[in-house]
Amino acid sequence: MLKEQALKLHEDNRGKIEVNSKIKIETKEDLSLAYSPGVAQPCLKIAENPDDVYKYTSKGNLVAVVSDGSAVLGLGNIGALAGLPVMEGKSILFKRFGGIDAFPICLNTQDTEEIIKVCKAIAPNFGGINLEDISSPRCFEIEQRLEKDLDIPVFHDDQHGTAIVVTAALMNAVKLTDKQYKNLKVVVNGPGAAGVAIINMLLHTGIQNIVACDEHGILYKGRNPLEGHKEQLCNVTNLDNKQGDLADALVNADVFIGVSAPNVLTTQMIKQMSYEPIVFAMANPVPEIGYDEAKEAGVKVMATGRSDYPNQVNNVLAFPGIFKGALQVRATQINYQMKIAAAQAIASIIEHDELTTQYIIPSALDARVAERVAQYVAKAAVETGVAKLN
Amino acid sequence: MLKEQALKLHEDNRGKIEVNSKIKIETKEDLSLAYSPGVAQPCLKIAENPDDVYKYTSKGNLVAVVSDGSAVLGLGNIGALAGLPVMEGKSILFKRFGGIDAFPICLNTQDTEEIIKVCKAIAPNFGGINLEDISSPRCFEIEQRLEKDLDIPVFHDDQHGTAIVVTAALMNAVKLTDKQYKNLKVVVNGPGAAGVAIINMLLHTGIQNIVACDEHGILYKGRNPLEGHKEQLCNVTNLDNKQGDLADALVNADVFIGVSAPNVLTTQMIKQMSYEPIVFAMANPVPEIGYDEAKEAGVKVMATGRSDYPNQVNNVLAFPGIFKGALQVRATQINYQMKIAAAQAIASIIEHDELTTQYIIPSALDARVAERVAQYVAKAAVETGVAKLN
Repeated sequence: MLKEQALKLHEDNRGKIEVNSKIKIETKEDLSLAYSPGVAQPCLKIAENPDDVYKYTSKGNLVAVVSDGSAVLGLGNIGALAGLPVMEGKSILFKRFGGIDAFPICLNTQDTEEIIKVCKAIAPNFGGINLEDISSPRCFEIEQRLEKDLDIPVFHDDQHGTAIVVTAALMNAVKLTDKQYKNLKVVVNGPGAAGVAIINMLLHTGIQNIVACDEHGILYKGRNPLEGHKEQLCNVTNLDNKQGDLADALVNADVFIGVSAPNVLTTQMIKQMSYEPIVFAMANPVPEIGYDEAKEAGVKVMATGRSDYPNQVNNVLAFPGIFKGALQVRATQINYQMKIAAAQAIASIIEHDELTTQYIIPSALDARVAERVAQYVAKAAVETGVAKLN
Repeated sequence: MLKEQALKLHEDNRGKIEVNSKIKIETKEDLSLAYSPGVAQPCLKIAENPDDVYKYTSKGNLVAVVSDGSAVLGLGNIGALAGLPVMEGKSILFKRFGGIDAFPICLNTQDTEEIIKVCKAIAPNFGGINLEDISSPRCFEIEQRLEKDLDIPVFHDDQHGTAIVVTAALMNAVKLTDKQYKNLKVVVNGPGAAGVAIINMLLHTGIQNIVACDEHGILYKGRNPLEGHKEQLCNVTNLDNKQGDLADALVNADVFIGVSAPNVLTTQMIKQMSYEPIVFAMANPVPEIGYDEAKEAGVKVMATGRSDYPNQVNNVLAFPGIFKGALQVRATQINYQMKIAAAQAIASIIEHDELTTQYIIPSALDARVAERVAQYVAKAAVETGVAKLN
């Protein structure tokens, strides 16, 4: 039923985005102001002072939603054309929640160097680039290189959007226990794009005891063979260099964060965790453990990626406000202070007396979120010196 | 005054384009249909059958307005950023006159191979590519290569848009004389992007006697040195292999078509032309000869590129309808039959009894034009077998 409705919605509207004029063209005069010969004036101003492009064009409020279709939703490598409905969807969420004009750019290449080249070539049109559904580990290099070479913010949402909402959720979840946030022992299962970003984000918020697991078990120094990004994780996680499987990792852990695969977390494992365990099981559409099963096994606070259970970790809470804030002050990047500020903003929406184990994350439709995230992010950008305006 | 108004218009609106959603997102259900998990359905359909991208996404009505900023209006090589106001302007004209969603892509490169690569990489998002303000001779290769390699129409408007409107104007102008269209002796001054396209277009409509001139005079076989595209012109123009300057070329000519430089046509030259001379002087903003001066020298029909004189050759008469027609039947290219059909459509707007020397070209704001051009173009696409629908 949902399937048919979704197809009908897309077919009836022939897609989800349209490009409109902000200006009326009814008379010859209108034409000569918006186009030739009047348009030469803003062109000349920008040629003289490139920064004026933000004054006279739509660039400052435009974000490219760039994907190569290599890791679309849970569907895998379905390619550029098939990824287009997702990128159109993302674009309209930018507008709906952040008031940002976003445009899908699905690339007919999955070559790292070509993707970087194309993004750099089209950058003049955009105030920011949101990378989307690009598979790991290529996504790391693409983001890092673009961030280094471009003067507009570049943000891989599958990494940082998820990490920011998870961090916000964890900030609130811990308030429902008698534990200290920075002392939490955390296990992250699934060191892909989102997993790596979550680990880095939690480290930046002061958590030190993190163990990462993949399908072969704990990541530790000397385990062979390890891909580059997993090897790097061994330098900042698992400081005791523990070995073993996921069950071993979870003994006495306070938090399980899963961005991995269906049903890999068992009630057995939960029972070996520390008291008042926190479980974020975000594999989609089937989580690492079912909501009810986890609660019955003693989980104190449970979150998933699904909208039909409490506490949905949904990136839409993060990306519209983050770009809105970054664009407002013309930030040249989205640094960790800005990401942490975004997490704090999301967490702060729920007042202390509203907080329950069923309500640690605001609703995806909560209109207050994007605005507050934007405020916090803009402030952090100014404070850390990456904003061109303030 | 116009200058200040134009700047204010651009600044007040922060540019001219915006990206909007065609779909309302108010409820959780809306979210789950337009985005995850519902959006997976159109993705899967397209992965199975790539043609379904036209059914479920906005691709089929989207045109990229691609420029490298190398030949913007009469301003020259001002670069990608400074060209953006023009490409935004072009985009809103597509919407206003053709109902087409168009998006500016200003490229941060002027390398032919890179431009081709980038266009091919971003092609999945678009139903067509309108190349704009790319300098000659690179524009020829870029268009040809993309046309060959892509299955969506590629159209360099500075070439063909101008050529189509000029052809329409000439079709009507000749009706005001006692001459035969195919027997016209034509001199084209300025063998750049537009000049080459005009010559090729006129040849395709049956005119055989064409002489091309550049700033050094007539193009003839053996003249050295000649750039590649000028050398090619010598194979199809100036069949008598005349030598000399523009004045020599114009002796007994019926038509002067200028896409060149201000004030290069003199009353002296006009007086050496055949009886009832036709002059299209389209250098912008200062034409090859002034309107009044030309008329006083005996020109029968005069057109320029300016909106403040009669008979403005304005590309906006062509490109919205051409893409509208091509997209309607999902044409894979825009061939000469379609271009000629577009010229005939534009010319046909003016009924025989309305036709005067002051009115051979419809107004840029005439709402009937784009619709009729689209009809003619779609029909020609179907008839020549380049349409995927009919």
